[in-house]
Amino acid sequence: MTSSDRYGPTRMKDVASAAGVSMTTVSLVLNDKAVGIPAETKQRVLDAAAALGYRPNALAANLRTRTSDTIGFVSDTIATTPYAGAMIQGAQDAAWKAGKLILTINTNGDPAVEAYALNALLGRQVEGIVYAAMYHQMIEVPAAAKEVPLVLLDARSADSEIPSVVPDERGGAYEATSHLISHGHKRIGFLKNTASVPAANERLEGYREALEANAIAFDGELVVAGDSGLAGGYAAAMALLVEPHRPTGLFCFNDAMAAGAARAAHELNLRIPDDLSLVGFDNLELVAPFTNPPLTTMQLPHYEMGVWAVEQLINRIDGEDFSVFHQRMQCPLVERASVGPPPTRT
Amino acid sequence: MTSSDRYGPTRMKDVASAAGVSMTTVSLVLNDKAVGIPAETKQRVLDAAAALGYRPNALAANLRTRTSDTIGFVSDTIATTPYAGAMIQGAQDAAWKAGKLILTINTNGDPAVEAYALNALLGRQVEGIVYAAMYHQMIEVPAAAKEVPLVLLDARSADSEIPSVVPDERGGAYEATSHLISHGHKRIGFLKNTASVPAANERLEGYREALEANAIAFDGELVVAGDSGLAGGYAAAMALLVEPHRPTGLFCFNDAMAAGAARAAHELNLRIPDDLSLVGFDNLELVAPFTNPPLTTMQLPHYEMGVWAVEQLINRIDGEDFSVFHQRMQCPLVERASVGPPPTRT
Repeated sequence: MTSSDRYGPTRMKDVASAAGVSMTTVSLVLNDKAVGIPAETKQRVLDAAAALGYRPNALAANLRTRTSDTIGFVSDTIATTPYAGAMIQGAQDAAWKAGKLILTINTNGDPAVEAYALNALLGRQVEGIVYAAMYHQMIEVPAAAKEVPLVLLDARSADSEIPSVVPDERGGAYEATSHLISHGHKRIGFLKNTASVPAANERLEGYREALEANAIAFDGELVVAGDSGLAGGYAAAMALLVEPHRPTGLFCFNDAMAAGAARAAHELNLRIPDDLSLVGFDNLELVAPFTNPPLTTMQLPHYEMGVWAVEQLINRIDGEDFSVFHQRMQCPLVERASVGPPPTRT
Repeated sequence: MTSSDRYGPTRMKDVASAAGVSMTTVSLVLNDKAVGIPAETKQRVLDAAAALGYRPNALAANLRTRTSDTIGFVSDTIATTPYAGAMIQGAQDAAWKAGKLILTINTNGDPAVEAYALNALLGRQVEGIVYAAMYHQMIEVPAAAKEVPLVLLDARSADSEIPSVVPDERGGAYEATSHLISHGHKRIGFLKNTASVPAANERLEGYREALEANAIAFDGELVVAGDSGLAGGYAAAMALLVEPHRPTGLFCFNDAMAAGAARAAHELNLRIPDDLSLVGFDNLELVAPFTNPPLTTMQLPHYEMGVWAVEQLINRIDGEDFSVFHQRMQCPLVERASVGPPPTRT
C-alpha cells in the first residue's frame, strides 16, 4: 500500500509494520534519538518511511517541543476584499524571512466565527497572533487572543498593553494638503467621509493643521461630507464646485471619492489639473492609476504595516523585546498627474 | 498562576495539579469519558479547567480522532491582490455551513513555499485541500496535495482524476459578443490579451463562435492584442478605432482593457455608447462601476466557484461522492451603461 491508495497521510503504524519494528523505534529513529539502535534497523525504518511517503506528524512534534513556527493571522475581510491585501503580503514576507508560516483565517468580523477561529489557532499551537482589521479602527480584543503574543494590525485597542500599528492618517492628510498649498492653492476643499471612523476624523485634523501652518483660514463651507464611494464623492463635489465658493484644489477622503470628484469635474467642464487639482488617499491599484488624469494620492502603507506587525510579534515570541509600541506608519505621497498650479482667475 | 501570566496556553498538567488528580483523569473528564469517576472529582476538574482557562488541545484530540474539521486553502496570490478575493469568501461560506474551518496559506506561487505549506497543512491533519489559482490556468499539482481529498479552484490539471472548477470563458465571450449583436452591431472588435492563457484563447473562440452563429464574417483586422491592463487596452483601442476599419462595438478581454478603450474613445471624441459600445470581462468592483459611463461586463463567478470547490471537497471528505467533475461555471452578463445601438453612419 502506498500513501496515494487512500485518503489521509501514512501513519507511523504503517511504517512500523513495514519495517517490522515497534512504533517507538520508528519515532526514535525519525526524531534522531535512536541511540543504541542498530544501524541496519535504522536504515530499514528510514527506507520504509521513504517508500510510504511518511511525514513525521507535526502535531505530535508540537506537543513535545511547543514550537510550531506558525503564526495565526486573524482578520475580518482583508483577504476577501480588494483593498488591503498588501497587509497579508507584508506579514507573509516577514514571517517567511523568520522561517515561520502564516495561517490566515477570515472571520467577516463575526464574533462567533472569531471565537472559533482563535480556539482553532490556539489549539494548533500558534506561537502568536496578528489580529488585523480591513481599515483603521478601534476594536475590542477577544480575551483568547491574549493567551499568546499578540499584535494589532490596522487597529487599536483601549488596552494599551497590546502593540499596534495604524497609518499616520493625520500626517498623510497634512502632507496632501501641504502638497496642494505648495502648488499655490489657497482655496482647498476637503471631501470628507460621513462615517465617524478614525481615518475620517484624523484626516480632517491634518487638513486643518496644514491650512493653519500656512496661515490659510479654515472655512467650513469648503468641507463637504459624502459616502466614501464614487457616488458620494461625485455628490459632494457637485455641491462644492459651484461659484462663488469653488475651490481650486480638493483633498478627498479616499481615491473612490476622488474618482467621483473627477467625474463631477468632467461634467462641469472643469479640466484636471488646469481648473481643479485633486489629491486622493489610499493609492488603490485599481483606482488611482485609472482616473483621468491619473490621480495623485497618499499611499496607505499596508505592506509596511504587515511587515512591522509580524516583526514585532516575532520579537515577542522570541522573548527578545516586550516593549509595547503603538506605531503610526507614514503615508507617502504618490505623485501622478492630477495636481498643478491653480487657474488664474480673470 | 493564570493563563495570562505567561505566554502559551495552560497545559493539562496545570489543571491536573490544581485539581489534585492525574492527567488521565483530566483527559477523561474533559472528553466526556469519565465513567466511574465521582461527580465531585469531575466538578473539581471542570472548575480547575475553567479557572485556568484550559483549552483541550485540538492537536492531541486530532491524533485520536483524525477529524480536524479543517480544510486547507492553498493559493498563489488570491488573498494579497484585489482581483479574486470572492473565491475565498465563497469557500469560507461553504465551509462554515458544514462546520469546518478554512486555513489559508498564500504561496506567491513559489514551489518551495508551496511544499512547506502543504507539509504544514498535512501535518495539521487537514481533511482536504482546495488548491486555488488567481486566474484560470493549467497547473501541475504537487504530489503531496494528493494525499488528501483535493479540488482545484480556477485551475485545471492534466491529471483528469482531480476535480476542478474554472469559469466558462468561451460561454462568457459568446454571450458578451451576442449582447453587442443583439443591439444591432455587426462590426465588432475584440481587444485580446497578448498572453497565451486559457482565458485569452477561449474568449477569442467564444467571440468567433458568436459571430458565426449570427452569420457575421470573422475579420482578423478587428482583433488587436495588447497587455491586459489599462495601457494595453488604450493602445490596442487607439490602433483599432481608426477609419475605415472602425468597429461600432468592442468586446474587451477584461475590464482594465475596457477602461483603457474608454480612455481612447474619449480622446478620439467618440461617445460611449452613442458612437462606440463596450463590453468588458471580470466585473471588478473597483473598475467596472467606475468607468465613464459604467461598464457592461461579464461577471467572473469567483464566489460561486469557491462555494462549488468546497462543497465538492466536503462530499469527498465525507466519502459520499467520489465522482470527478470538471465544472465550467457560467459568467453572467452585468448590464450597466456602455452598450447601445450602433451609430447611424451618414
